[in-house]
Amino acid sequence: MDFTKLPKTELEKKKKELEASYRSFQAKGLSLNMARGKPGQDQLQLSNDMLDILNSKSDLSASNGQDCRNYGMSEGLPELRKLFSEMMEVDADHVILGGNSSLNMMFDTVACGMTNGFGGCEPWGRQEHRKFLCPSPGYDRHFKVTEYFGFELVTVPMTPTGPDMDAVEEYVKDSSVKGMWCVPKYQNPTGVTFSDETVRRIANLKPAAKDFRVFWDNAYCVHDLTETTDHLLNLWEECEKAGTLEMAFFFASTSKITFPGSGIAAMACGDKNFKEIRTRYSFQTIGPDKLNQLRHLYFLKNLDGVKAQMAKHRTLIAPKFKAVLSKLKSELSGKNVAVWSHPRGGYFISVDVLPGCAKRVVELCGKAGVKLTGAGATFPYGRDPKDSNIRVAPTYPPVGELEQAMDLFCLCIQLAAAEKLLGPSA
Amino acid sequence: MDFTKLPKTELEKKKKELEASYRSFQAKGLSLNMARGKPGQDQLQLSNDMLDILNSKSDLSASNGQDCRNYGMSEGLPELRKLFSEMMEVDADHVILGGNSSLNMMFDTVACGMTNGFGGCEPWGRQEHRKFLCPSPGYDRHFKVTEYFGFELVTVPMTPTGPDMDAVEEYVKDSSVKGMWCVPKYQNPTGVTFSDETVRRIANLKPAAKDFRVFWDNAYCVHDLTETTDHLLNLWEECEKAGTLEMAFFFASTSKITFPGSGIAAMACGDKNFKEIRTRYSFQTIGPDKLNQLRHLYFLKNLDGVKAQMAKHRTLIAPKFKAVLSKLKSELSGKNVAVWSHPRGGYFISVDVLPGCAKRVVELCGKAGVKLTGAGATFPYGRDPKDSNIRVAPTYPPVGELEQAMDLFCLCIQLAAAEKLLGPSA
Repeated sequence: MDFTKLPKTELEKKKKELEASYRSFQAKGLSLNMARGKPGQDQLQLSNDMLDILNSKSDLSASNGQDCRNYGMSEGLPELRKLFSEMMEVDADHVILGGNSSLNMMFDTVACGMTNGFGGCEPWGRQEHRKFLCPSPGYDRHFKVTEYFGFELVTVPMTPTGPDMDAVEEYVKDSSVKGMWCVPKYQNPTGVTFSDETVRRIANLKPAAKDFRVFWDNAYCVHDLTETTDHLLNLWEECEKAGTLEMAFFFASTSKITFPGSGIAAMACGDKNFKEIRTRYSFQTIGPDKLNQLRHLYFLKNLDGVKAQMAKHRTLIAPKFKAVLSKLKSELSGKNVAVWSHPRGGYFISVDVLPGCAKRVVELCGKAGVKLTGAGATFPYGRDPKDSNIRVAPTYPPVGELEQAMDLFCLCIQLAAAEKLLGPSA
Repeated sequence: MDFTKLPKTELEKKKKELEASYRSFQAKGLSLNMARGKPGQDQLQLSNDMLDILNSKSDLSASNGQDCRNYGMSEGLPELRKLFSEMMEVDADHVILGGNSSLNMMFDTVACGMTNGFGGCEPWGRQEHRKFLCPSPGYDRHFKVTEYFGFELVTVPMTPTGPDMDAVEEYVKDSSVKGMWCVPKYQNPTGVTFSDETVRRIANLKPAAKDFRVFWDNAYCVHDLTETTDHLLNLWEECEKAGTLEMAFFFASTSKITFPGSGIAAMACGDKNFKEIRTRYSFQTIGPDKLNQLRHLYFLKNLDGVKAQMAKHRTLIAPKFKAVLSKLKSELSGKNVAVWSHPRGGYFISVDVLPGCAKRVVELCGKAGVKLTGAGATFPYGRDPKDSNIRVAPTYPPVGELEQAMDLFCLCIQLAAAEKLLGPSA
């Protein structure tokens, strides 16, 4: 039953049925949240043993003998830097550990560009008409960082192989284009892993601006939903080959490995950027929380430990993704009202509803007690030009609630589609 | 035996004796550090029970029911905000909790001024010739933050009642003067607590610049060395009376209450600044480490808990201050080669040696194995115009080592004085 091909009378009848179902949903008084990529309670429980790892009798010294409770060791514990370098596939000597938030490190890095500049250029804050490339749909919080700092956000379409590189190569000829946000593996929200060609073309960009920087947020580097991980070509190595290592900043965190609120963030970059960022941090703080680093080191141990932990997460969240996908399929397939992603990792399912319907779907869901990510959030300035993309975050609610929420979601997609197809007079 | 009044021959004889003693010190091969205000191992031990407070079986929810392990609650735990408001004597609704470093919050606040500005003014980063007032001797890391951001550092003399307010009132008539660093209680390094008049005059400043801001770093607000705390007039209240609350940012942390590397930092400010800073943090991070906040809340409990904890610190460090002061007295009094502070709180003893001798004293101590804060560090750009001030940090070494280090320090002060008084030909 393709909605777009239904005769008007049948569609009107269908709409009435959908409205009746919707009212009965409203009567249920649901209160569910699929808005953010927030791990569920069961996932938090996976790291609870980390809370037992340090106690008042523990040896709290780092391998270099320094006391982790005191000031010092601003670069972080060497062994944990090494573990991050393996996760991020970058050089360990170029890793800087931060606090609990990689977003914070990205923000600070943009802030560093704003006040002190990169590559010997005038600080961004003193340059007019700066632009930043935002592959979209993408991560709202990335876009907002550069919006906060007064960049003009430029939408670059996401394709099944990553950002549209023809567009990117064209844009970087403009010296006012200062950078690009990337989530290269299991992209938020599309789930796309950048192809080898995309990674190579990024490494070989020849931007007009010497202070153009790629923000490579490998947030989901070990966050597989299947037993085989997606292959992502190593940008660090490709940049080294191309002599462009100073063009990229690399980020990751344990926020979705251990505790979202109390994880460890890390970044890496080439020599010159490293020196710039380390200088900034040397003024900014006396050092990160090393006790929490020690907890992470003892708990995760090494890359195998990380992988074992991620397998446990997968066991808990893969069924949630499956539930969402199976609802989308059973409720919507053949109706021509939506297409959606089938991610092999990450935290999201990206749903494109009929153009002009995304806001209405989110509104309908909200009024029946299911909170979704705001429509448009995945685009710069929160404005989806087609009003079509909705990001579904399946991890937080238990499967039972998720299925209820998805029933409503699929209903609202159809109802919004019927409203749209019948036009404003309906 | 006043060195400055000794006949040349006697001073030469004295110098030879001092040199002989110095050589025997060198032979001892000491390796001691009095450079930074770093708590000693015994002090770290005072908070070790905090590591047992949370474990895998704990209730990890905040009083509002939210799980402290997950994302969210960007403003921090309400009860801990309240505790900080009592410590800082500010309004609880205007407290923001941060990560482990109040220096980081100060840095971020200056960075906010740089990129986004305060009071509706042009961002600092877009204003030429900005200046910042630095009461000196003062805290080197404060000065360096504003140096990093390109401010011209203006030295304001510290007096026994706080910064020279005649000078401050004159300087703020210049609209390029954008702020002032203050450690109002047990100032680093002088130990001075600002007088009531000083606090009132600060609250009643009429700066030409609308974006002039006082950075009120109450780092030692509960860090008494005696049983009676110094009285510090409440700047928050004085500013409210004067209608100048937007002129001040207030900071504090538990770095020297619990663990220096894993404490909790906080700041407070008036409505408009609060909105500006909260906006920045809403882009910068998804929230602070709430598990560590929960540990602190359970461990410290309330202001009485903080005071009890500080009494334990006092028991450990007051004897160290006493040892330093008693060495200074027994070795140097009557010799007219140094004057020093007698702090009632804080972390430092400030020693003024003969003009032109501070660098030499630090050099001599270093060559015999005792590391001191670099001479000049307590002044803007690390340049003490008189080359006279040395900051002594007694807390880290055990008393026995401290006494050895002080013997050497006092010897070096005398030797440098003798060298100076005898002139370059000697």
